Amino acid sequence: MTLVLSNEEIAQILTMELCIEALDAMYVEVGRGLALAGPRIDLVAGTQTLDGAAADYGLKAMGGVLPSNGVSAVRLNSDIITWPERAGFIRREKTPAANGRWVGLVLLFSTRTGEPLMIAPDGFMQRTRVAGASALGARYLARSDARTLCLLGSGWQAEGQVEAFCAVRPIESVRVYSPDPEHRAAFARRMADKLGKRIIAADSAEAAADGADIVAAATNSLDPVLQPEWIRPGVHLCSITVNEVHPDVVDEVDRVAFHTKEFTKEQTFRPAAAAPVVQQRPGWWTPPDAAFRSRLSDLSEIASGHATGRQRSDEATLFVNNIGMGLQFAAVGSRVYEEARARGLGHELPTDWFTQTVRP
Amino acid sequence: MTLVLSNEEIAQILTMELCIEALDAMYVEVGRGLALAGPRIDLVAGTQTLDGAAADYGLKAMGGVLPSNGVSAVRLNSDIITWPERAGFIRREKTPAANGRWVGLVLLFSTRTGEPLMIAPDGFMQRTRVAGASALGARYLARSDARTLCLLGSGWQAEGQVEAFCAVRPIESVRVYSPDPEHRAAFARRMADKLGKRIIAADSAEAAADGADIVAAATNSLDPVLQPEWIRPGVHLCSITVNEVHPDVVDEVDRVAFHTKEFTKEQTFRPAAAAPVVQQRPGWWTPPDAAFRSRLSDLSEIASGHATGRQRSDEATLFVNNIGMGLQFAAVGSRVYEEARARGLGHELPTDWFTQTVRP
Repeated sequence: MTLVLSNEEIAQILTMELCIEALDAMYVEVGRGLALAGPRIDLVAGTQTLDGAAADYGLKAMGGVLPSNGVSAVRLNSDIITWPERAGFIRREKTPAANGRWVGLVLLFSTRTGEPLMIAPDGFMQRTRVAGASALGARYLARSDARTLCLLGSGWQAEGQVEAFCAVRPIESVRVYSPDPEHRAAFARRMADKLGKRIIAADSAEAAADGADIVAAATNSLDPVLQPEWIRPGVHLCSITVNEVHPDVVDEVDRVAFHTKEFTKEQTFRPAAAAPVVQQRPGWWTPPDAAFRSRLSDLSEIASGHATGRQRSDEATLFVNNIGMGLQFAAVGSRVYEEARARGLGHELPTDWFTQTVRP
Repeated sequence: MTLVLSNEEIAQILTMELCIEALDAMYVEVGRGLALAGPRIDLVAGTQTLDGAAADYGLKAMGGVLPSNGVSAVRLNSDIITWPERAGFIRREKTPAANGRWVGLVLLFSTRTGEPLMIAPDGFMQRTRVAGASALGARYLARSDARTLCLLGSGWQAEGQVEAFCAVRPIESVRVYSPDPEHRAAFARRMADKLGKRIIAADSAEAAADGADIVAAATNSLDPVLQPEWIRPGVHLCSITVNEVHPDVVDEVDRVAFHTKEFTKEQTFRPAAAAPVVQQRPGWWTPPDAAFRSRLSDLSEIASGHATGRQRSDEATLFVNNIGMGLQFAAVGSRVYEEARARGLGHELPTDWFTQTVRP
């Protein structure tokens, strides 16, 4: 039978701890050359919404093969992108055009038989795998006695990040900053209830970062968020995009690791005429700088022993969760699938619906 | 509702004529820059079959966006690859390891709402779209009075090719050759019954090709099948792989077109230790030769009027159906979906199973 799961069912199964262990084992396999990550493919073309408005349609695909878990996975996103104006700014927004819902799927296949094992929405796994990679960055790079966390950002990804750091370090207090006072206060209340930790909304990024053992950014900012002034002995910095990192931070920290050095993105754009032109700004990470690359390691190298994490308590470290990998969905998806089968969750469909008697 | 279709249901709908028209309209869109084709991704890693034998696992993905039809499509293949010995030769074979079945899927999404419209096995669409492209090659490049067809190969793809040429040209007789006398005789009987044409099994490739208006190869040969001796005024040659074409044929014909010039393939291999090493032989098509490329057109250029097909009745032409595109599944899949909905075919599943309330 092929299992169809919902985000709600996956949320019952996929704890942060389970996610972190699944990812860690996968990075070891990547580092040993025993798992395969494919590139990420983005196709974006002009379309119309049902009410005739100009929009972009985006098809995104990423895949990976993880023989040690007996699975491969493909994650697909099918997005309707619009550009609403909010408070004077044009924003690029994924619109819930599928009857008020968004579309992202993970398909899990068996590498022993080829058959499709599971089809599930990607949302809960998506946030958890991003947070899980940040957690592993902290496990390998943050001081083991890190007790204070500064979080910049109070959105959906930020929630996952707090849980992630709390799962791998003895975090006692969290200071959160985001530009909107109400958002950050609500975030602090919500997460304090959820995690039973002391969580304070700070009045500025500086106030939040001051003296923190871990300073983490989880924003969608196109401008640098992590500032060089915050580097001090023993600190660990973390970002979920390359944009969030000020170039001087990269130069001044003692040790820097990416989520992955190898993953590539191929983008083909033929956007709608109405799409605003987004300026692609050259960043410190591109073109790849040879001297920088020689200093850089990634999670798979550290997890498999080909590179080292933190070596001294006074090092300043940086982890850049630079891009996702389809393999993360294979690693996390296989654990979700096994546990869902064990608990009898989800809808079962005949696998013969998704297989065939002709050789394609 | 999201529709799940079977190959048998698709075979009721997808005639060669419907396929050809769907593809032709799509190539026009590609030529006008209004449709997007993604690269093909192959990930191949060592695995084990259920009985513990060493094998390769292959995950293949290709996608495309076709806004004029309101759809995008992704085709996924999940293959178990073994290397059985047959008659002294090691062959690379896709094994039906999913309970005796193979695994290839097409997922069709709406570019208006993003939602998944259809999930279906790829097999019948796969053969029909390969044949449909050859048919269009013949429509644009073969003489309009082509009456005799030589077919080299008698396998599954060869069946589709005969139907394809008969759909676009007034074919009266077919001569088929393949190395095994029983195979070619059985093919001739079967296709004569199916198409009501005169179909003869020939004793040699030369005897089959001699004087034919169209000479088509549909084999899995790694060696050239289409020979320069067969070029004569007015002939049309067609192959379903680049390997099948002798390099001198490319130089000596008057006009040559590919299925597509732009499509790319990315392959990542970490095969099983037991996998035989397949020598990658450099071919006439790689590295791309500038002089050759300047002579070369493709279906999208011809269909959209940016390049010309046959201009004179005495030209010798060559069409190389060099590689598939995910866009073909979008073009053909959208017609299949519409017709299946109109006829009430397939299993309907709640689309909410495959969409979500969180923004991925």
